[in-house]
Amino acid sequence: MNFKDTIRVIPDFPSPGIRFKDITTLLKDGEAFRAAIEQFKDFAAQRDADVIAGPESRGFLLAAPMAYGLSKGFVPIRKPGKLPHETLSVDYALEYGKDSLEIHKDAVQPGQRVILADDLLATGGTIKAAIKLIEQLGAEVVGICFLVELTYLNGREKLEGYDVFSLVQY
Amino acid sequence: MNFKDTIRVIPDFPSPGIRFKDITTLLKDGEAFRAAIEQFKDFAAQRDADVIAGPESRGFLLAAPMAYGLSKGFVPIRKPGKLPHETLSVDYALEYGKDSLEIHKDAVQPGQRVILADDLLATGGTIKAAIKLIEQLGAEVVGICFLVELTYLNGREKLEGYDVFSLVQY
Repeated sequence: MNFKDTIRVIPDFPSPGIRFKDITTLLKDGEAFRAAIEQFKDFAAQRDADVIAGPESRGFLLAAPMAYGLSKGFVPIRKPGKLPHETLSVDYALEYGKDSLEIHKDAVQPGQRVILADDLLATGGTIKAAIKLIEQLGAEVVGICFLVELTYLNGREKLEGYDVFSLVQY
Repeated sequence: MNFKDTIRVIPDFPSPGIRFKDITTLLKDGEAFRAAIEQFKDFAAQRDADVIAGPESRGFLLAAPMAYGLSKGFVPIRKPGKLPHETLSVDYALEYGKDSLEIHKDAVQPGQRVILADDLLATGGTIKAAIKLIEQLGAEVVGICFLVELTYLNGREKLEGYDVFSLVQY
């Protein structure tokens, strides 16, 4: 399947000069969505994952089906204030300013093998923060998968030493 | 499976007096998560669904695995400004003030049979807005499923005439 054909490119969103990769056209194509998750599922199964985690909210769209397909647990990584129990928090830099991500302290156990999934690898800031959260809880990130990778932003350099898979590259 | 045993109740979140139903403990239990999605999947299959839609962001956690499991398309319903293409928008009342939800205008086709999924049926405001969006695009809501229903808030009354399923009731 040529997944790129199912992704819509939107010029000048969210700001002038950006060519936004709209994955909603892939998601609403039942065959493409299924085929994409199958590839992610195989990636996770080969790495003997115990848990699938994904950052809010587009990461949920990939990590939750993977977890379901593998009969494994799903762990959400969320924006501040959304998780109701005791959390661990980490800040990360944005182009202007900073943001935070949180995880429940009891979401993963020390030694568990975790796969992270998100829609987009751009500069890698978000996923790096997610990795930190998992590792601070004593679990191991055994693989990271993305639907789309913007190779010209070199996010992969930030993820050196990790096992990274992306379905579609621009 | 007794799903209630896998849901954690957090007192006084997000505000005093609220007993928050924390579904993250269900999601991280691979067996419970799989069993829950299987029930939703059966519900959707029996209603001959073409598309599964879910509101941001916890609705994604149910609707996306259902779509994957059924090899159907998934459609996100999102907060304002998140969807990059032409959208249809609807306002809905909150306890104090109002909020909006959006859908891509080309997300569903007239006549398509749509299942909506969300984590929680409380007062029913959010799901009612989601129904409006689907129907304004000419598609049909053939069923709605929730992980948790707070029966004392009577949200189901707002959904009269719709086929509603909830996995766990409080």
